[in-house]
Amino acid sequence: MTQVETHNYPVERLTEFCVRVFQYYGVPADEAQQAAHVLALGDLRGIDSHGIARLQSYCSMLSAGRINPKPNITILRETASTATVDGDNGLGLVVGPKANRIAMDKADDVGTGWVAVHGSNHYGISGYYVLEALQREQIGLALTNSTRIVAPLWGAERMLGTNPIAIAFLGCDEPPIVIDMASSAAAFGKLEMAVRKNQPIPDGWAIDIDGISTNNPNGMIDGGAMLPLGSDRERGGHKGYCLGAMIDILCGPLSGANWGPFTHPFTLGHPEPARQVGIGLGHFFGAMRVDAFTDPDEFKRQVDDWIRTFRATKPAPGTNGPLIPGDPERIRSTKGIPLVQAVTDDLREISKQTGIAFD
Amino acid sequence: MTQVETHNYPVERLTEFCVRVFQYYGVPADEAQQAAHVLALGDLRGIDSHGIARLQSYCSMLSAGRINPKPNITILRETASTATVDGDNGLGLVVGPKANRIAMDKADDVGTGWVAVHGSNHYGISGYYVLEALQREQIGLALTNSTRIVAPLWGAERMLGTNPIAIAFLGCDEPPIVIDMASSAAAFGKLEMAVRKNQPIPDGWAIDIDGISTNNPNGMIDGGAMLPLGSDRERGGHKGYCLGAMIDILCGPLSGANWGPFTHPFTLGHPEPARQVGIGLGHFFGAMRVDAFTDPDEFKRQVDDWIRTFRATKPAPGTNGPLIPGDPERIRSTKGIPLVQAVTDDLREISKQTGIAFD
Repeated sequence: MTQVETHNYPVERLTEFCVRVFQYYGVPADEAQQAAHVLALGDLRGIDSHGIARLQSYCSMLSAGRINPKPNITILRETASTATVDGDNGLGLVVGPKANRIAMDKADDVGTGWVAVHGSNHYGISGYYVLEALQREQIGLALTNSTRIVAPLWGAERMLGTNPIAIAFLGCDEPPIVIDMASSAAAFGKLEMAVRKNQPIPDGWAIDIDGISTNNPNGMIDGGAMLPLGSDRERGGHKGYCLGAMIDILCGPLSGANWGPFTHPFTLGHPEPARQVGIGLGHFFGAMRVDAFTDPDEFKRQVDDWIRTFRATKPAPGTNGPLIPGDPERIRSTKGIPLVQAVTDDLREISKQTGIAFD
Repeated sequence: MTQVETHNYPVERLTEFCVRVFQYYGVPADEAQQAAHVLALGDLRGIDSHGIARLQSYCSMLSAGRINPKPNITILRETASTATVDGDNGLGLVVGPKANRIAMDKADDVGTGWVAVHGSNHYGISGYYVLEALQREQIGLALTNSTRIVAPLWGAERMLGTNPIAIAFLGCDEPPIVIDMASSAAAFGKLEMAVRKNQPIPDGWAIDIDGISTNNPNGMIDGGAMLPLGSDRERGGHKGYCLGAMIDILCGPLSGANWGPFTHPFTLGHPEPARQVGIGLGHFFGAMRVDAFTDPDEFKRQVDDWIRTFRATKPAPGTNGPLIPGDPERIRSTKGIPLVQAVTDDLREISKQTGIAFD
């Protein structure tokens, strides 16, 4: 296995750099802080593809006037437990946290809050939003649609994003259960890694431009598509497709955002969709107060029991037994965030363009 | 392929038989009607394993005093948008619809309604509940946990049920999108069919008692387990496990029902769980008024557009292209419900025990 060389950077320094860069592009100070905080959490949780590595794509969109640095985020429609939010084409890293707070505030008032968002952009890791809810003893739910890259089962073209879903549950003595998963069989980042290493990909990840299952990662890159969770009919690929569809419809048609193959591109590199069916990118947030359903202490004890019970599962051969959702992403030591050369090159380029010192 | 012989029965006659049988076991007339209606819809939608084929298991539980025919279903805790319901060990086919109505009523009042249920039993097809919500122009969500049969990824024993999730969206001229799926890679019923036909099962469905992937369906039956959607690590088996876990925690720890390996058995044949961690079986229902988020007519037009767009996907070779979720379960012609011999044998046995004429 090729070991990719990395250099460690203190998270505080990376965060400060992001804040200043966002401000350079006209984002107000408090919102720049908010956006940088979401990115840093991506890195701290080891989801490097959704951390500071994405700064370049946000900058290019801001620089090209494709993202509004000073959005007027408004509620267009609401009930006691719901709202529909127009993100005014702001950074998803700013629109998302604000919409999520509206959901949590409504949960404080009437037990639960549910917020559909249009006119947004890429919102970082879904896990950020549900971790916020934990701090209020709420169960958070976060969904977003994203640029098309996944084929529906029996389809031969890209029609859905990797459309992730996140939800989290607070334990008492155990760390929280944090689910944050895409609805595709594999992450696109893993396929990109196979391209770079010139390695074949496993069955069930992707199809080529003719809709035929391929082990060649370039077959997917050259006009093919990723497959939904379950991969094929026999193994339940229709279920992964259903999951992606559910997320797409809650984030698109329900919010008034674009959906399916017409989803808003999150970076300049992507081709423009064939038509516009809504406004910007869409998200869907939920928040449920635990004490609206049960005694929170009892719930947390039950979650602890759940975690210990599942940790004690008889392990499959060659494994240490099941993980608990969230285990792989426990906060990294604060010793530093390991960045690969390609990312530090990007950051130095941003530094050159903006005049903000990086290192 | 072996063709299984079936006989057609008018749905009205099967429904009437169910009503009378439930009443024989002490279920009040209106609740017997409700329960029979849920079962009939299972058959009408072609989900035969969850239709009248299950009558035998409900009867055996009622007959043994393991299900309460006259439950006092109560709300234990509530907010404007939530409730926790105690099903008093009633039929899930009665408790589920009542709890679902509470969710829909709350949605009428404050935009959405969310109801966690404990003290219930098997509630039939999840699709029933979300179809009810469509009639009120709501988006319904239905989850239930169920008897353990699925291993978590890297586990070698049964820890979760096939824990299904259902959600539905109303179109305008197009039929609704109805998602109703288990979180396992394959349905247990399909594995049972392979046993009966003495055929191997595909990779990714099951493990044997040692936790090793098996193509022998009896390997799963004899102490093995089904696998979660995604099957193995490479293809995202951790995601299917996460989905099953999410459903289990919303239906168990949040409602106060049993969960995971301790889930309440739905029929007499299952061994008693090692310990009791809650009360009965659990469900979780959601209902969201479409007009709480957007103009319902616009939403329905968008759903139609979504359906037509996905139907027009370039087909994968050897297929007619993607289906829309719900396509496979469109209501059967009312010519009759095809029952296999084993089911009619069961019904005749019930007829003999109860003295209620079957045919």
